[in-house]
Amino acid sequence: MSLMIVGSMAFDALETPFGKVDRIIGGSATYAAWAASNFTQPIKQVSIVGGDFPQEEMDALTARGVDMEGVEVVKDGKSFFWSGRYHMDMNTRDTLVTELNVLGQFNPQLPDSFQDCEFLMLGNLAPAVQISVINQLKNRPKLIIMDTMNFWMEIALDELKQAIGMVDLLMVNDSEARQLSGEYSLVKAAAKIQAMGPKFLIIKKGEHGALLFHGKKVFFAPALPLEEVFDPTGAGDTFAGGFIGHVARTKDISYENMKTGIILGSAMASFCVEKFGPNRLKELTREEIEARIDEFVELVNFDINIK
Amino acid sequence: MSLMIVGSMAFDALETPFGKVDRIIGGSATYAAWAASNFTQPIKQVSIVGGDFPQEEMDALTARGVDMEGVEVVKDGKSFFWSGRYHMDMNTRDTLVTELNVLGQFNPQLPDSFQDCEFLMLGNLAPAVQISVINQLKNRPKLIIMDTMNFWMEIALDELKQAIGMVDLLMVNDSEARQLSGEYSLVKAAAKIQAMGPKFLIIKKGEHGALLFHGKKVFFAPALPLEEVFDPTGAGDTFAGGFIGHVARTKDISYENMKTGIILGSAMASFCVEKFGPNRLKELTREEIEARIDEFVELVNFDINIK
Repeated sequence: MSLMIVGSMAFDALETPFGKVDRIIGGSATYAAWAASNFTQPIKQVSIVGGDFPQEEMDALTARGVDMEGVEVVKDGKSFFWSGRYHMDMNTRDTLVTELNVLGQFNPQLPDSFQDCEFLMLGNLAPAVQISVINQLKNRPKLIIMDTMNFWMEIALDELKQAIGMVDLLMVNDSEARQLSGEYSLVKAAAKIQAMGPKFLIIKKGEHGALLFHGKKVFFAPALPLEEVFDPTGAGDTFAGGFIGHVARTKDISYENMKTGIILGSAMASFCVEKFGPNRLKELTREEIEARIDEFVELVNFDINIK
Repeated sequence: MSLMIVGSMAFDALETPFGKVDRIIGGSATYAAWAASNFTQPIKQVSIVGGDFPQEEMDALTARGVDMEGVEVVKDGKSFFWSGRYHMDMNTRDTLVTELNVLGQFNPQLPDSFQDCEFLMLGNLAPAVQISVINQLKNRPKLIIMDTMNFWMEIALDELKQAIGMVDLLMVNDSEARQLSGEYSLVKAAAKIQAMGPKFLIIKKGEHGALLFHGKKVFFAPALPLEEVFDPTGAGDTFAGGFIGHVARTKDISYENMKTGIILGSAMASFCVEKFGPNRLKELTREEIEARIDEFVELVNFDINIK
């Protein structure tokens, strides 16, 4: 049994109102694995990197219980590179550079030892790649979650809808949910997206929290109000990693347990944004995580007494 | 003992993506009184209207337990008029017309029978008017809450700061909190604003909910995700009315009880936006309110089990 994470491992260059970094480790699968490994191990990682990706980063993940057999290393290739600049509100950003590099030829072949995957997280990738991974699995996982982005809605909508129809839970941000559904109201958008297949939908709203929809039910988890949001890059993937890490550990795919997963994902995301890149995630202690979860409980916990 | 509400009673003309109305009842004190009267009566209303304000609207409030002795009627004057147009996201709006009319000469003289006020809500008004009301009270109320807006930060900042220094709880939206404090982070903004005097601060974020700050403590209440937000006018005043109505009924000004007040305020606001003007607030039943509160409990309630 295990959790499989499929996504990018990459370099990022970032500008925020608080600083600038030229070339740091990034990628959806990197952030997700660091977050999830706090809750469940082993994790089977599926990705592709160039010869420029640091061996010590691979080793650090291995040491965290992440099985790297599914990470293809193209020795003479370059890793995916993304560069962006954040606005003051940190919820909006401009892409400055996207160099697909080896990610453009990503055609994952799952190792046999990855066939026991019970929980599958498909990070934001070409829908064709997401579909190919699902089709390679001889046994359907208990839960398949996927992320995507507006880019695929624009250039590969049919394949994207096919992929969405194959998964149990879709995770998008609010503007993506609106674009995908054609509905401004997130309640209406959620109904339309669930009609495309996924029984669960998470709509991420950045600093405004996240919503979990399941049939007519809806659960809301806030983001923790922070003194400083230093770098929001990877926060969504970290959220997803914390969520699926908890679900995989408990093997409980109920709506109630997903609520806990969303709180844990939000807690992990609140750490992620405190430093550039995944650095904050690498150094977390169990005590820090538990204290942060307590802050979430304090943030939303109330007793109603109106009699 | 009673709750006193000071604010505008007015006409609004509104355009939203869903419709348009030319001249409907509005005003901060109108919305607040309708919301608060679900929880506590009598309410002492302090406002000013022109001869054009419909007597049946005054009578409807009286029938709801709102004492109108403090509402000055200027027979040959016109009521305050505001006209605005909402953008698609309903969180932003353009002011098209502001006609102060009789509100420009508002200089409330509290009736003697209003001196027993235990809870005071100062709606958005010129800070000089807010200060004058506080100064007319021989006994300090248990709790004074005030609303304001960016307009007063621009033209009467010194008086505004004086008013803020005299109240227990300030209620502003996120952009106003940022403008008032000069801090982008709402956590930092909250600390600076509390240093100006108020021991409690509520930051309203429209469809993204509301935050209550008290010292180092913070509580978050979401807005209910709705299929349709028809007209957000008055939602903030309705929120305030529900909040202070609950606090006045329970006579409990603890942080814990304020959390309940914020949930009730959010519930009332979620009704307010369902129709143009305060109409939805006028027809609410106890059962509808309790069912809506249950929806809030479902929305945020979770049990953490990570052991």
